[in-house]
Amino acid sequence: MEDLTYQSSGVNIDEATEALADIKDVVRATYTDNVLSDIGAFGGMFAANFPGIREPVLVASIDGVGSKTSLARTMEQYEGLGADLVNHSVNDILAQGAKPLFFLDYFGTSKLDKDQLTAVIRGVAKACKAVGCVLIGGETAEIPDIYAAGHCEISGSIVGVVDKAKRLPRSGITAGNVVIGLASTGLHTNGYTLARKALFDKMGCEPDRYLDEVNGILREALLAEHRCYFSSVYPLLPRILAIAHITGGGLLDNIPRVLPEGCAVELDRTAWKEPAIFGLLRQVVPENEMYRAFNCGIGMALIVHPDSADGVNRELNDRGEWSWIIGNVVEGQREVKIS
Amino acid sequence: MEDLTYQSSGVNIDEATEALADIKDVVRATYTDNVLSDIGAFGGMFAANFPGIREPVLVASIDGVGSKTSLARTMEQYEGLGADLVNHSVNDILAQGAKPLFFLDYFGTSKLDKDQLTAVIRGVAKACKAVGCVLIGGETAEIPDIYAAGHCEISGSIVGVVDKAKRLPRSGITAGNVVIGLASTGLHTNGYTLARKALFDKMGCEPDRYLDEVNGILREALLAEHRCYFSSVYPLLPRILAIAHITGGGLLDNIPRVLPEGCAVELDRTAWKEPAIFGLLRQVVPENEMYRAFNCGIGMALIVHPDSADGVNRELNDRGEWSWIIGNVVEGQREVKIS
Repeated sequence: MEDLTYQSSGVNIDEATEALADIKDVVRATYTDNVLSDIGAFGGMFAANFPGIREPVLVASIDGVGSKTSLARTMEQYEGLGADLVNHSVNDILAQGAKPLFFLDYFGTSKLDKDQLTAVIRGVAKACKAVGCVLIGGETAEIPDIYAAGHCEISGSIVGVVDKAKRLPRSGITAGNVVIGLASTGLHTNGYTLARKALFDKMGCEPDRYLDEVNGILREALLAEHRCYFSSVYPLLPRILAIAHITGGGLLDNIPRVLPEGCAVELDRTAWKEPAIFGLLRQVVPENEMYRAFNCGIGMALIVHPDSADGVNRELNDRGEWSWIIGNVVEGQREVKIS
Repeated sequence: MEDLTYQSSGVNIDEATEALADIKDVVRATYTDNVLSDIGAFGGMFAANFPGIREPVLVASIDGVGSKTSLARTMEQYEGLGADLVNHSVNDILAQGAKPLFFLDYFGTSKLDKDQLTAVIRGVAKACKAVGCVLIGGETAEIPDIYAAGHCEISGSIVGVVDKAKRLPRSGITAGNVVIGLASTGLHTNGYTLARKALFDKMGCEPDRYLDEVNGILREALLAEHRCYFSSVYPLLPRILAIAHITGGGLLDNIPRVLPEGCAVELDRTAWKEPAIFGLLRQVVPENEMYRAFNCGIGMALIVHPDSADGVNRELNDRGEWSWIIGNVVEGQREVKIS
């Protein structure tokens, strides 16, 4: 009987080991003095000293980039997916007021491709380094039967820290507060299953053709990198009452996550400009579903006191964000009305 | 043109929301006073106060249960997968000397099944609670095109804490040190792609038939829960120099991860007893591949000073572990010889 090995069963440990050798430097480039382990340890070790933070609270989140992975073709695009994952996670814990400490990535695939894996990790590491986050661990899993042939998923988790007294959302959110919206670059990392059905199956769009409606190649518009709001928003936190990261569930489901009882939000849909991709999707996706499935142009919503609204908005613009005053907190039952 | 919704594209947000409602209580049952957030926050919040630990070091790991998921059929078995995931992770950070603080789970699937998801989360939560770990966050992703039809993956990440001076591996590991092996319950969470090829495709075994060789139903033997060694090993850490969790790569690749330069390990394969499933696999998988793909009966290896060996081994037995002195540290180049 012929010998059976891991490789003949469809799992190539050597390919993973080679990829790991390739990305060691880029991972170590994210390390700071807090890191007490090296690549290959059973657990990444991070010294828990947080100078300047009186009562440290760890803030943790886990997420994935979903079926956005199925749109990537070039190694540059796979690198973009790595950045998407980190930026999504950084925004999630920023919504609680936290700055990132460390990140762990998980790459699951039907068949391990060294170039694909290293591109993803490069993207993860670069996006980590940009916000001072250490890439402290990761795992690669080649599972031929679980993932559809030729497909992969990229997920990961982040841990950050916030001073207990400064954590968001703050108490005291009330009717009359102002909502500031920060522009998204496109779908970010949500709604891709619906978007692909709408654009490719229903409308018959070709991913690699130039499209007037998006003023470019459709695939490029869909793969636009999930914007990271950390650098522009973190310095303004003392003037911010609450932050909603607009992910799955859209504006309708995410803003209520930070509203206290008795409060609702009204948004003026003429107040901001959507990336063109959403106009295309509106041709086949009904209005209410648009606001539930997609961010519709707002990647992050801030709630601020009316006295701070203009100042915060101006400073966001100065820091390179497109942002607008898009609505108000009103009395109501933790819902969002868009009109 | 017919309206397109998220649900018609294959993603059922309502099913996820319902499942979430079902598992709220079981998740909250893991909470301690350290938890400052509730379910639904953008990031889980955990107060970073660690009484009795002088210089806290956070230890983090991310992992998945791989294709073991494809063997589960009943809800009880899905619950077992949740426990597998947590136990694997707890053992990983125990290898650095850490006790668990909090866990985040990620459930990716081709089609969301509420019962399946809640069973997995129940298993995760129970296994967390058993070791005082908080289930602080999680994410569910229904991605029809990425996962093969009817398949799912379960991954997650853990964060624990260790006092800097007590972290493992310790310095001073040297020839003459003793290796203690702790019995595994079976494959734990590694080698399933190879095992399924070997047992089902090559040997033609039926998963649900009683098999003399394993003294039971094959599927049950394969789904045996990944043993968590935390409760029996943690109290003995002051007498332990290093710990290797025997996961993917087996004894051959995992023990060297904790060996210093100039050291190797020799194991006596007659010193321990393997679960019967490995005897079955040996019929078609060559010897060397066995020790690289599977734990071959040793779920965790401890390195101790010879003066401590008998005492540690006896206490492990007293705490309910099967354990054996299985070999020694010798001079060499960070390799493992099994003879």
